[in-house]
Amino acid sequence: MKVEPPVKILVANGVNLDLLGRREPNIYGNSTLAQIETEVEEYFKQISKSHPSMNLRIHFFQSNDEAKFLEELSKDWSGIVINAGAWTHTSLAIADRLTALAIPFVEVHISNIYSREEFRHKSFLSNGAIGVISGFGKNSYFLGIRAIIDHLILQKKN
Amino acid sequence: MKVEPPVKILVANGVNLDLLGRREPNIYGNSTLAQIETEVEEYFKQISKSHPSMNLRIHFFQSNDEAKFLEELSKDWSGIVINAGAWTHTSLAIADRLTALAIPFVEVHISNIYSREEFRHKSFLSNGAIGVISGFGKNSYFLGIRAIIDHLILQKKN
Amino acid sequence: MKVEPPVKILVANGVNLDLLGRREPNIYGNSTLAQIETEVEEYFKQISKSHPSMNLRIHFFQSNDEAKFLEELSKDWSGIVINAGAWTHTSLAIADRLTALAIPFVEVHISNIYSREEFRHKSFLSNGAIGVISGFGKNSYFLGIRAIIDHLILQKKN
Amino acid sequence: MKVEPPVKILVANGVNLDLLGRREPNIYGNSTLAQIETEVEEYFKQISKSHPSMNLRIHFFQSNDEAKFLEELSKDWSGIVINAGAWTHTSLAIADRLTALAIPFVEVHISNIYSREEFRHKSFLSNGAIGVISGFGKNSYFLGIRAIIDHLILQKKN
Amino acid sequence: MKVEPPVKILVANGVNLDLLGRREPNIYGNSTLAQIETEVEEYFKQISKSHPSMNLRIHFFQSNDEAKFLEELSKDWSGIVINAGAWTHTSLAIADRLTALAIPFVEVHISNIYSREEFRHKSFLSNGAIGVISGFGKNSYFLGIRAIIDHLILQKKN
Amino acid sequence: MKVEPPVKILVANGVNLDLLGRREPNIYGNSTLAQIETEVEEYFKQISKSHPSMNLRIHFFQSNDEAKFLEELSKDWSGIVINAGAWTHTSLAIADRLTALAIPFVEVHISNIYSREEFRHKSFLSNGAIGVISGFGKNSYFLGIRAIIDHLILQKKN
Amino acid sequence: MKVEPPVKILVANGVNLDLLGRREPNIYGNSTLAQIETEVEEYFKQISKSHPSMNLRIHFFQSNDEAKFLEELSKDWSGIVINAGAWTHTSLAIADRLTALAIPFVEVHISNIYSREEFRHKSFLSNGAIGVISGFGKNSYFLGIRAIIDHLILQKKN
Amino acid sequence: MKVEPPVKILVANGVNLDLLGRREPNIYGNSTLAQIETEVEEYFKQISKSHPSMNLRIHFFQSNDEAKFLEELSKDWSGIVINAGAWTHTSLAIADRLTALAIPFVEVHISNIYSREEFRHKSFLSNGAIGVISGFGKNSYFLGIRAIIDHLILQKKN
Amino acid sequence: MKVEPPVKILVANGVNLDLLGRREPNIYGNSTLAQIETEVEEYFKQISKSHPSMNLRIHFFQSNDEAKFLEELSKDWSGIVINAGAWTHTSLAIADRLTALAIPFVEVHISNIYSREEFRHKSFLSNGAIGVISGFGKNSYFLGIRAIIDHLILQKKN
Amino acid sequence: MKVEPPVKILVANGVNLDLLGRREPNIYGNSTLAQIETEVEEYFKQISKSHPSMNLRIHFFQSNDEAKFLEELSKDWSGIVINAGAWTHTSLAIADRLTALAIPFVEVHISNIYSREEFRHKSFLSNGAIGVISGFGKNSYFLGIRAIIDHLILQKKN
Amino acid sequence: MKVEPPVKILVANGVNLDLLGRREPNIYGNSTLAQIETEVEEYFKQISKSHPSMNLRIHFFQSNDEAKFLEELSKDWSGIVINAGAWTHTSLAIADRLTALAIPFVEVHISNIYSREEFRHKSFLSNGAIGVISGFGKNSYFLGIRAIIDHLILQKKN
Amino acid sequence: MKVEPPVKILVANGVNLDLLGRREPNIYGNSTLAQIETEVEEYFKQISKSHPSMNLRIHFFQSNDEAKFLEELSKDWSGIVINAGAWTHTSLAIADRLTALAIPFVEVHISNIYSREEFRHKSFLSNGAIGVISGFGKNSYFLGIRAIIDHLILQKKN
Repeated sequence: MKVEPPVKILVANGVNLDLLGRREPNIYGNSTLAQIETEVEEYFKQISKSHPSMNLRIHFFQSNDEAKFLEELSKDWSGIVINAGAWTHTSLAIADRLTALAIPFVEVHISNIYSREEFRHKSFLSNGAIGVISGFGKNSYFLGIRAIIDHLILQKKN
Repeated sequence: MKVEPPVKILVANGVNLDLLGRREPNIYGNSTLAQIETEVEEYFKQISKSHPSMNLRIHFFQSNDEAKFLEELSKDWSGIVINAGAWTHTSLAIADRLTALAIPFVEVHISNIYSREEFRHKSFLSNGAIGVISGFGKNSYFLGIRAIIDHLILQKKN
Repeated sequence: MKVEPPVKILVANGVNLDLLGRREPNIYGNSTLAQIETEVEEYFKQISKSHPSMNLRIHFFQSNDEAKFLEELSKDWSGIVINAGAWTHTSLAIADRLTALAIPFVEVHISNIYSREEFRHKSFLSNGAIGVISGFGKNSYFLGIRAIIDHLILQKKN
Repeated sequence: MKVEPPVKILVANGVNLDLLGRREPNIYGNSTLAQIETEVEEYFKQISKSHPSMNLRIHFFQSNDEAKFLEELSKDWSGIVINAGAWTHTSLAIADRLTALAIPFVEVHISNIYSREEFRHKSFLSNGAIGVISGFGKNSYFLGIRAIIDHLILQKKN
Repeated sequence: MKVEPPVKILVANGVNLDLLGRREPNIYGNSTLAQIETEVEEYFKQISKSHPSMNLRIHFFQSNDEAKFLEELSKDWSGIVINAGAWTHTSLAIADRLTALAIPFVEVHISNIYSREEFRHKSFLSNGAIGVISGFGKNSYFLGIRAIIDHLILQKKN
Repeated sequence: MKVEPPVKILVANGVNLDLLGRREPNIYGNSTLAQIETEVEEYFKQISKSHPSMNLRIHFFQSNDEAKFLEELSKDWSGIVINAGAWTHTSLAIADRLTALAIPFVEVHISNIYSREEFRHKSFLSNGAIGVISGFGKNSYFLGIRAIIDHLILQKKN
Repeated sequence: MKVEPPVKILVANGVNLDLLGRREPNIYGNSTLAQIETEVEEYFKQISKSHPSMNLRIHFFQSNDEAKFLEELSKDWSGIVINAGAWTHTSLAIADRLTALAIPFVEVHISNIYSREEFRHKSFLSNGAIGVISGFGKNSYFLGIRAIIDHLILQKKN
Repeated sequence: MKVEPPVKILVANGVNLDLLGRREPNIYGNSTLAQIETEVEEYFKQISKSHPSMNLRIHFFQSNDEAKFLEELSKDWSGIVINAGAWTHTSLAIADRLTALAIPFVEVHISNIYSREEFRHKSFLSNGAIGVISGFGKNSYFLGIRAIIDHLILQKKN
Repeated sequence: MKVEPPVKILVANGVNLDLLGRREPNIYGNSTLAQIETEVEEYFKQISKSHPSMNLRIHFFQSNDEAKFLEELSKDWSGIVINAGAWTHTSLAIADRLTALAIPFVEVHISNIYSREEFRHKSFLSNGAIGVISGFGKNSYFLGIRAIIDHLILQKKN
Repeated sequence: MKVEPPVKILVANGVNLDLLGRREPNIYGNSTLAQIETEVEEYFKQISKSHPSMNLRIHFFQSNDEAKFLEELSKDWSGIVINAGAWTHTSLAIADRLTALAIPFVEVHISNIYSREEFRHKSFLSNGAIGVISGFGKNSYFLGIRAIIDHLILQKKN
Repeated sequence: MKVEPPVKILVANGVNLDLLGRREPNIYGNSTLAQIETEVEEYFKQISKSHPSMNLRIHFFQSNDEAKFLEELSKDWSGIVINAGAWTHTSLAIADRLTALAIPFVEVHISNIYSREEFRHKSFLSNGAIGVISGFGKNSYFLGIRAIIDHLILQKKN
Repeated sequence: MKVEPPVKILVANGVNLDLLGRREPNIYGNSTLAQIETEVEEYFKQISKSHPSMNLRIHFFQSNDEAKFLEELSKDWSGIVINAGAWTHTSLAIADRLTALAIPFVEVHISNIYSREEFRHKSFLSNGAIGVISGFGKNSYFLGIRAIIDHLILQKKN
C-alpha cells in the first residue's frame, strides 16, 4: 500500500499570545496557550482518525519575534491556522508572505475583533485567507482546525 | 429521571439565500439551500448524540421578507446561527432585534466578506454576535452549528 | 352648527417597538407598547377636551413590516407622531414617502439617540420633520402629541 | 415556421412610485404611474412591431414591499427596466439579487439623481446595470425600454 | 406640615437669543425673548398648580457672555432647560460644566437644527442631556418645561 | 406658411473620443467616431421626419482642445448632447460654461461610468444637465438624441 | 436742504488684534492697531469728501471679549469691516449675529489665511459676508473700507 | 532726469469670463468684460496720476485657452491681477507657473467663492498669492488694482 | 551684589477648573483648586530655594472668562504652566495669543486627554508649547512647574 | 541583411517645463530644458550604440497646450518617457489617452513628488505606467531613457 | 524590622533611541543615551533617598528588536517609564502587551510629538498609560521618573 | 598618489525579498535574489570602472528581521539602495533611522506600487529619499545603483 506524504498543519500564534491565561481573562479566557495547544492536539487526533488516508500531522508555534514567525510560516506546511495577535492589524509583512507562499490559511481570533476598537476591525490577513473565525474563545482554534482540514480534504479531492 | 426542556437552535438564512446553487457558483458554491440544510441537519444529529442530556433541536428558516424574518427570530430560541445575506450590511433592525431579544447568535457567511467589496466588510450584526465565521462555503454552517452548541453547553455549565 | 371634519392623528411605531418592555429596559423603560398607547390615549383625551372645535382623533399603529408601515402612513392623516425605530437610520423610503405625502410629522425617540452609537445620530427623517423629540422615555410620545396638536392648531389659525 | 419563445421585459417600479402624480410634481411630474404605464405600453407596441421575430412582451409591476419586489424580479424575465425609488440608495438586497439572477437590466430615474442630495448620487444598482438613465421625467422609461430592447436584440445577434 | 425645599428650574438662553423677534423671523418666529419668557412663565404656573407638593420655581436668564452664562448654570438649580444658541455647536466648556455639575438638563432649539447646515447637526450638549427638543418654535420651550418637570417628578419618586 | 427658425442640436464629443474604435474595444466598442456620427445622423433624420414643424438640424463636433470645445459650445445651439470624455471628471470650466449659456444639454457616456473607477463616478456636468445616459455603447448617443429632441418639443409646447 | 442721516461704519477688530505690532511682525507687520486705525481714518476722510451727500462716519472698536464684541456689532451700523482674528475660525456666534442683524459686512484679514495652516482656511464669517479681503497687511483695512463704502453707495442707489 | 522703466500690470481673466454680462447676472452682474476693463482702465489712470514716478502701465487679457493664458502670464509683468474663473479650482498648472515666475499677483473673484459650492472654496492660486479679494462684483477688480499697485510701491521702497 | 530681576511664573487654569473637587472626582480627583494651588506653591518654594539666583516667583490665576484669561496671559511672565480646560480643544484665540506673546509655556492636564473622547485628543495649544504633561492628576502641575523652571534655567544659561 | 524598422522613443515634457532653469532652481536645478535635452540625446546615442540592431531613435517635445500634447503622444511611438508637470495631478485626459493608445511609458519627475505637498503625491499617470522615477533632478530623464529602452529590448525578446 | 520587597522601575527606550546624540540634535539634543541614563540614575537616587521604605530600584533597557523589547517589558516590574520611539505610532503589540501585563507605565517623548508630523500625534500607547510627557528633551525622563514614583507611592498608600 | 577612502554602497532588501523567484512571478519576476545580486554586482563593476577615483564598493544585505536590518543600515555607508518590501508601508522605524543617520538613499521597488492596492501607494521612506524608482522589475535595482552613484559623484564635486 502506497503511503501518502504527510499533510502538515501549523497552528501559529503570534505576538502576545504567550500571555494567554495571564492576559485580560474576561476577553481571552483562563486557559494558557499550552493548555489550549494540548486540547487542540487532542481534538486534532480525533479528527485525524476519521481520515487515516490523509496522514495528518499538527505542529504548534508561538513567537513574539516577527522574523522567526515569518521563518516558521515558510516551512513546508500544507495549511496554517493563524492567530497573529496584534500583528493582524499592523503587519503587512505576514500577509504578504502568506500570499507569496500560497499556503492556504484560516485566520482565527479568540475575541470577537469586530466588537472591539475600530482599529481591530481591519485585518491585513483576511483578504488572503480562506476564511475568518473570530470570537469563540479557545473554541476558535478547534473550529479553525476543522475548517483547514475540511479545506485540505476538499482540495485533495479536486 | 427529569427531562430537560429542549434546547432549540434556529438556522436563519436571510435575503437572496433562496438562490443558493443558482447564484454565482464561483462565490457561493453549487449546493442549493435545501441540500445544505439537509447536510447541516445530519451533522447536527451526530453532534446531538454526544450530548443527549442537552435535548438539542434544530429548525431552518429562510425568508426574503424582513418582517417575517424578524418575527421568526423572536420565537423561543436558545441560540441562532444566522446568515443575513445582504441585510448584514444594511439592516440595523435585525441587529437591534437580536440585541433586544438577548439570544446568543453566531454570524456566518458562505463567502469571505472581508475579501470582497469594501461595503461588505462592515456588518451591523458582528458587534452583538458571539462570534463570526466567514468564508468556508457551506462549511461555515457546520462550523456555526458547532460553535453555537459549544456556547450553549458552556453556558449551561456556568 | 357646522361640524368640523375630524383632525386625525397617527402615532406610528416602527420596527422592533413591539418589543417595548421586553427590550433593554435600562434604555427603553419597562412599559409595553400597549401600556404606553393607553397612557398616550388618555393624555390625548385630556388635551382634546380643551380644543373641542378641533374634533381631534387619535390612532395607533405598529409594524415591523415596512410595506405595511408605508401604507398606513399614506392614509388620510392630518398629522403623524412617528418613532421609526431602527428604520430612522436606514430607511430613505419612509422619509421620502412622508415628504411626498406632505403630512406634518413629529419625530420622537424614547432614548436619546445623540448619546448612543455614532450611526444613531443621523436620521433620514429629521430633515423633513417639524421637529424632533428624543430621550424622554415614554414621555417623548406625550411631548410629541402636544407638539403635533399645537402645530395643527396653529396651522388652522393661519 | 418555428415560433420564437417570447422575450419578456419587466418594468419594475419600487417603493413610493405608487405616489407618482401625487408626489412633488415639480420633481416627478404630473402623470400617475398608471398613465405612464399605459404610455410606455403603447410605445412598446410600436417598437415591437419593427421586431416581429423577437416576440417581445411587456409586464408592469410596482410594490412597496421589498420581499414581493424581489420575488417579481426572480421570475423568468429576459430583461428589466427598473426604477427602484428610494431603495436605489439603501437596498443591497435588490442589487445582489439582480446580479445573482444575471438578468440584464437598465436603471432608470425620473429625476436627475445627480443634481439632488449627496446621498442620492450613490446607487447600489448602477454597478451591475447595463447602463443608467436619469432625469428625463417619464421619458426615462421610454428611453429605458428602447435601451433594453436594443440590448436584447444585440445579445440575440451575438 | 413639613415644607419641601423649592425645586428651582432655570430657563437658560445663550448667545444671540436676545435678538429673538428681530432675527430671521422665518426661522425663529416673531416673538421677542421677553414675550416668550412671559408665556413660558404662565404655562409654568399652570403646571405647578397640579404639583403643589413639588414647590416648583422658575428663573430666566440670557447672556451673550459665556463666563456669566457658566456662572449662572452653576447656581443651585434642580434642573435646566437650555437653548445655548450658536454655543451649542462650539462650546465644549458649557457641556463640560453641565456634566461636572451633574444637573439634569433638557436641550431645546427653536429651529430644527437637523434640517439646517451640516455643522448645526452636531451638538456638544446632546450627549449629556436628558433629551433634546428641536424645531417647534417657541413651543420648544413649553415642551422643554414639561419634560424637565416630568423628569424631576419621576426622579423624586425613585 | 410661416417657417420656423431651425432648432439646432450639437453632438459634442470631448477629449480622446477621436480614438473610438482604436481605444479599448471591450469598453468602448468597435465603431469609430465617424461611423457613430453617420449612424446618429441617420437616426436623427428619421426622428426629424416625424416632427417636420420643428425644423430640426444636427451638427457634430469633436475636439481634444478645451478652448475650441468651449467655443463650439457657445454657438447658437438649441440643445446639446455631450460626451465630454475624461473632462467630465476634471473640467469645471465646461460645466460652468454650459450653466452660463443656459443651453439644455444631455450628458452621455459610452461606458457605464458608475461601474468603473471611483473617480469616474463624479461628473462636474451632471448637476446642470437635463439628465444623464450612461453605459449603452454607441446607443447612448441615440438615446441622448431622442432625449434632447423630446425635451425641446416639450419646451416648445410650454 | 434735507440732511441725510449719517451712514455709520464700524471697523471691528476681534481677539488678539490688540497685539498688532507686537505679534509676529513677519506675518502681521510692524504697525500697532492704533497706528493702523489712524491711517484708516485718514484714508476714510479722503473718500468721504468725495461723497459728501452720504454723510459717512467711521468708528473703531477692538475687544478680546466676545460678549462685548457681539454687543458692539449690534449697535446701529450701516456697514461693518470686520477682522475677527482667531474667532474667524471658531466663533459661530459672531457669524450668526451678523446674519441675524442683517448688516452688510466685509471680512478682512491682515495675513493671507489661505496660505497658512489648514484650519485657518475655513471661516465661519465668509458665507454671510459681502466679500472677503485677505493678505494685504494693513492695506486689507483700506481695501475693506473702500469695499464697504462702494457697497453702501450702490445699495443706496438701488 | 532718469526715466524709470515702466511698471507693467496685467489684468488676466481666465476661462468663461468672456461671458460676463451674459452669464448668470444675479451672480456675476450685468457688465460685460469690455465694460469692466474700460472702467478699470479709467480707475487705473486716476491712481497712476498720483504715482507719476512709478511709470505705471496696464494691460488686459482674457482667454479660454489655458496654453495662451500661461503664455501671457509669462511675459514681462511687474504684477498681475488674476481672475482665473473655473481654473482657480482645477488648474495646478497656472498656480505652479505663477510660483515659478515669481511675479507678485492678487487673486480676485467677482462672486464670493466662499458662499458657493464646497468645491469653489478651494483655490490652487491662493497659497502663492499676495492676497485674495472675493465677492465685490466688478469692484473686486478695482480693489485688486489698488492692492497690486500698493504692493509694488511698497516693494520698490524696500 | 547685583539683584536679578524676578523670574515670574504663572499657573493659569482655564474654564471649569474652579469646579475641581466638585467635578467628576473619578476623573479629576478630590482636591479643590485652592488646595492644589497651596500644594503647588509649597512645592515651588522648595525648588526655588535650590535656585536662589533665579529669583523665582509664582502666581496663580483661574478664570472662566476667556477675555480675562487672555489679559492675564499677556502680563509680564517669564513662563506659564497652563491648563486651559475645555478651551484646550476649542479656543484658537488662546493658542494664537501665546504664540504672539512668545512666552514659553507648558501645557498640563489632570486627566489623560488621550484616553478620553476623540475630540479631546486634539489640542490647539500643543503645537506652540514646550511640551505637554497629561494624566497625572494634581501631580501634572508639580511636573509642569518642574518643567518650566528647568526650561527657564536652561534658557538663561544659553 | 534585413533592416529593422526604427524604434522611436518620445521624451515628452508637459506644462511649465519650458521654464526649467528659470523656475525655483532649488527644486528643479539650473539646467534649461534645451540643455537637458542635449545631454539626454548624447546619453541616448551612447546606449544606442550598444544596441545597433534595435535601430533606436529619439524625439523631444514640450508643450503647455494639452491638445497639442495629446496629439504628439498619439503619433507612432514605440515608447514614451513622460514628465507631465502639473498635469500629472490634474489631467485624466493624458492618462486615459496613454491607456487607450497602449504605448509603454515611463513616468519621470525632476523633484521627488512624494516629499512635496500632499496633492502632488497622487498621479493620474502612475497606474498605467511601466514604472515611475522621481526625484533625481535631470538624472531622472537619463534613468527614464535607460528604463524604457530596457523595457523595449525585453519586449522584443519575448 | 520587616524588609519591603523592592519596587523595580524600568526605563525602556525603544527603536532608534540608541542613536541619541547622533540623531538630529536640533530635535533630540546632544546627550547620548548612556549620558541620559547616568543622569537619570543620579536623579533617581536622590528621590529614592526621600522614600527609603519604598526600596526603589531602577533598571535601564534599550533595544531596536521588538521581540526583545516585549520580553523585557514582561519581567517583574512595578512600573515602567517608556519611550517607544517610532514604535509609539506603529506597534499595537507593545501597547497590547502593556495592557495585558497590567503594569502602570508613563509614556515619555524627548521631542514634542504634537508639534511634528500629523502621523506622530497618534500614539498606540497613550490610551493605556497613566499619563504622557512629551517635549522636554532629556528632562522628559526626569519628569517621567518623578511621575511613576509618585504613582507607585500613591498606589501603595491606597 | 593619495588613495581615496572607499565609497561604500549598500543594497538593502527587506522583509520577504528572500522569496524572490518563488513569490508571485507575474508581479516579481523569476529571478531569485541571489541571481539579481549577482547581476547588480556585475553592472556595478562596469560603472565603477568609469569612476576609478571614486573607489566604489558594493555590499548586499537581506533580512526579515527588522532589528538586524536597522543595525545593517547603521554601518558606515556612503549611500543606500533600499527595497524595504512590506516594511515600506508600515515601518516608521526604518524611515526615522535613515533620517537620523543622514545617509543618502534611493528607494526602489520591483513592482509599480502605485498601480497596486491603495495601502501600497503610501511609503514612509519616500519623504526622506533622494528619489524613488518603482516598477521596472529587477531593472529597478540597476537604475537605483546608477542613481545613487550619480548622486555621490555630484555630492563629491560640490
